[in-house]
Amino acid sequence: MEFMELAIQEAQKAYERGEIPVGAVAVDHRLGQVVATASNEMLARKDAVAHAEMQLIKKVLETNGSDRFYEAIDVYVTLEPCPMCAQALAIMRPRRIYFGAYDPKSGGVDHGAKIFTASSCHFHPEIIGGFYETECQDLLSKFFKKIRHDLKNKGASTKD
Amino acid sequence: MEFMELAIQEAQKAYERGEIPVGAVAVDHRLGQVVATASNEMLARKDAVAHAEMQLIKKVLETNGSDRFYEAIDVYVTLEPCPMCAQALAIMRPRRIYFGAYDPKSGGVDHGAKIFTASSCHFHPEIIGGFYETECQDLLSKFFKKIRHDLKNKGASTKD
Repeated sequence: MEFMELAIQEAQKAYERGEIPVGAVAVDHRLGQVVATASNEMLARKDAVAHAEMQLIKKVLETNGSDRFYEAIDVYVTLEPCPMCAQALAIMRPRRIYFGAYDPKSGGVDHGAKIFTASSCHFHPEIIGGFYETECQDLLSKFFKKIRHDLKNKGASTKD
Repeated sequence: MEFMELAIQEAQKAYERGEIPVGAVAVDHRLGQVVATASNEMLARKDAVAHAEMQLIKKVLETNGSDRFYEAIDVYVTLEPCPMCAQALAIMRPRRIYFGAYDPKSGGVDHGAKIFTASSCHFHPEIIGGFYETECQDLLSKFFKKIRHDLKNKGASTKD
């Protein structure tokens, strides 16, 4: 299975828990092996910054005994990282970041704060955006459609 | 004691542990009470993203049972937050952020990614920069001077 497909599986699991469906995978590209997988846990942890990438960083550091990723690691994430996650990844120094769907509203790589092009960023991994974009976006669209549907139904039932 | 003085005390403790001396305090401004204190723990946790602000967020969420700070909380931090911490704080929605020393190289509030003015930022707390700037900067300068001194001595002893 492609590593991004595994990240999408993680996002799907988040979807089933009612989380915004974002998944992430860290891979040791020298060995071609998965080091850690993660997904959004903002609801589960009651923590609005428990984004998939932050959870992933925690898990990788637990496994590798170092304070950073360094260039052994490639990261796959289904949504364009927000500025917090983009800077956290810059600090971690992976070799490469693949992300799926673009996030024009809250993304911080190609949009908004554009973390990696700012003078406050001192490390520049390779970045491949729009990787498996349709599959990643479809899951997010399905989620937000469901949220709107549920809200509408709730509104209707309140009027009863 | 002023709340920023408490943040400086936290930074001093970090200094004594060999960490870059940055301290942070969260205050419930309605009660005038400290909710949590934190400092850099990158060495202690072997985690390059364990910045004082991220540690502070974790501690506040543990105490308040919510997924965000909301406007009850003011944050005091001795150094201009980096883009990761600035965005994390934006997500937390505090009422106000006071920071001490400016960080032209790696700061993300008044410098670099300028998180709060980017379109990816959807919450804008009041920000007071340069609060107790001299005291905060002095401790950082002392730390980096010591690091340079230790490195120089190490270089000299290696030559022996």
